[in-house]
Amino acid sequence: MTPSCPIPIQQYPRVLLAHGGGGKLMRQLIKRMFLAAFRNPLLEPQLDSAVGELSGGKIAFTTDSYVVRPLFFPGGDIGSLAVHGTVNDLAMAGARPLWLSAAFILEEGMRMEALWKVVCSMRDAANKCRVQIVTGDTKVVDRGKGDGVFINTAGIGVLEHDRTLAPGNIRPGDVMLVSGDLGRHGMAIMAVREGLEFESQIESDSAPLHEMILELLGAGVEIHCLRDLTRGGLTGALNEIAEAARLTLMVEEKAVPVREDVHAACELLGLDPLQVACEGRFVAFVPERDADRALALLHGGAGGRGACKIGKAAAQGANPVLLKSAIGAWRILDAPGGEQLPRIC
Amino acid sequence: MTPSCPIPIQQYPRVLLAHGGGGKLMRQLIKRMFLAAFRNPLLEPQLDSAVGELSGGKIAFTTDSYVVRPLFFPGGDIGSLAVHGTVNDLAMAGARPLWLSAAFILEEGMRMEALWKVVCSMRDAANKCRVQIVTGDTKVVDRGKGDGVFINTAGIGVLEHDRTLAPGNIRPGDVMLVSGDLGRHGMAIMAVREGLEFESQIESDSAPLHEMILELLGAGVEIHCLRDLTRGGLTGALNEIAEAARLTLMVEEKAVPVREDVHAACELLGLDPLQVACEGRFVAFVPERDADRALALLHGGAGGRGACKIGKAAAQGANPVLLKSAIGAWRILDAPGGEQLPRIC
Repeated sequence: MTPSCPIPIQQYPRVLLAHGGGGKLMRQLIKRMFLAAFRNPLLEPQLDSAVGELSGGKIAFTTDSYVVRPLFFPGGDIGSLAVHGTVNDLAMAGARPLWLSAAFILEEGMRMEALWKVVCSMRDAANKCRVQIVTGDTKVVDRGKGDGVFINTAGIGVLEHDRTLAPGNIRPGDVMLVSGDLGRHGMAIMAVREGLEFESQIESDSAPLHEMILELLGAGVEIHCLRDLTRGGLTGALNEIAEAARLTLMVEEKAVPVREDVHAACELLGLDPLQVACEGRFVAFVPERDADRALALLHGGAGGRGACKIGKAAAQGANPVLLKSAIGAWRILDAPGGEQLPRIC
Repeated sequence: MTPSCPIPIQQYPRVLLAHGGGGKLMRQLIKRMFLAAFRNPLLEPQLDSAVGELSGGKIAFTTDSYVVRPLFFPGGDIGSLAVHGTVNDLAMAGARPLWLSAAFILEEGMRMEALWKVVCSMRDAANKCRVQIVTGDTKVVDRGKGDGVFINTAGIGVLEHDRTLAPGNIRPGDVMLVSGDLGRHGMAIMAVREGLEFESQIESDSAPLHEMILELLGAGVEIHCLRDLTRGGLTGALNEIAEAARLTLMVEEKAVPVREDVHAACELLGLDPLQVACEGRFVAFVPERDADRALALLHGGAGGRGACKIGKAAAQGANPVLLKSAIGAWRILDAPGGEQLPRIC
């Protein structure tokens, strides 16, 4: 027997774009529908990857579908994104990514050469990340029932340490680090879609993060929690983390790295850069004593030269996330609705 | 650098529905494009699941996207199919299915209650199969760029034995068994799409196969190769196996179980029942000495009451698959093109 629909259908009789936007509506859909139906101890923590014991070892398992439009954008394409995104979800569990699956949903009429370009890009990204694409699937849907190509990659990684990285481990006083400037992936996509031109082209930040993470863990940095800053951006991630951790997160606006051209593009489109998706950035929570060492390690690597501290965790107050503006005033950084940037990944 | 497209683009400048149909064109796309780009020892065998060593144990890993239309059909829906299909791919490696991922690509405007019905069906199927859905993803695409809901499930299973199940293990003289009557899934879908009415409704054969397989393996039946009979049906599966095994497979037409109503529906639509997809049937290759014991075990279980012998493997001849008709004449059972039944799973 099917119990009645857990989403209020008077209000939401149909799926909206915002249900996939990384904001409040998506959280509601996931929590009330998917989590409620599938509930089990591995799914429950709702992290980027599920972590469980298998044949004596600890492995991470994750999945993501990629529906980004356009398929090709400055700094990447749907193929490289499909590898980096899933590798990063494994990395956020502190796992070493090993194997990916690749499942293609092709639209009848997709140009064969464009598909080949995407496939080559996946191959190159996988080689660079030292992961293997070990299994796959191909489906074709009729013209007008898809959009060129959608790609799903699931990933398996191994945990070579005993640490659990989760919001519940964050302690008041922990320092928040981000690994580089924010919002570039989303604005690279939007600039193409809206035909915006700037002096310099905004390139996606799409990149793998696992080597940085494995280096931090290997050096003994006591990471308490990690999250990659995809849909919903920094604001989305911090609100989810704060809620799960039952803490308040205090962000210093002037410490948050956003490039000038990204700021300008956001202003033009009425977007908040802190809500814009990255595809090669993470936020890490580390104890204060480890923060400078972590930063030094990140600065020494290729992907983390722009890493910096952006704030701290504090005991739970009235609001989950607060932003201290340049003039010293605090404002609430509320979870985004999710309507802003459809099909960004 | 991108090497030139390995699919002849003069002939196939764009993706056709047949590229997803489980026949020759799909094999070409997979072999020349995906396998060529991603080549590695785990992908190479091109089995239903990749099998590899992980932290000391052997695991199976697989993925499938489900794009079946209509979403609901007699005997199942896209939700139960997405669980059974991936569980079966793991079972075909002789693995015990443990964890699934669930990734949804929703079309804006999808009815929320229909989505809930699909989700409940996934939950029920997962519970019945004793697998857990441990990680997931939700994307929404704009209206007219999807088709209600597409679901990807990837799966992980463990191998509790040392056997490898692959075409290379088949020996001349091995007996071919199928686990039940063929073609019902495809015809259940087609009957709905075409508005056909028969005295009795044709119900999909969608069902999990892992318990039957684990029972056979547990009883020491020496299974050489297993394949579930999805897109391309028996004919598609046997042609792939024969090619990989470098053997000729000889099928007795009168031994192949096809229900009367499925025959009638196929005749009406000009389809060959041996090319029609099942979603709860497998072909197994076992040495002659184990065949009767395997059948007895299958007949004793819930899912295998219709199991029977359909033929034998022989040394490689001029043709990969031969069918002996009721009057004793042999004809070639050629690999299907893949155009017949789009979006059957």
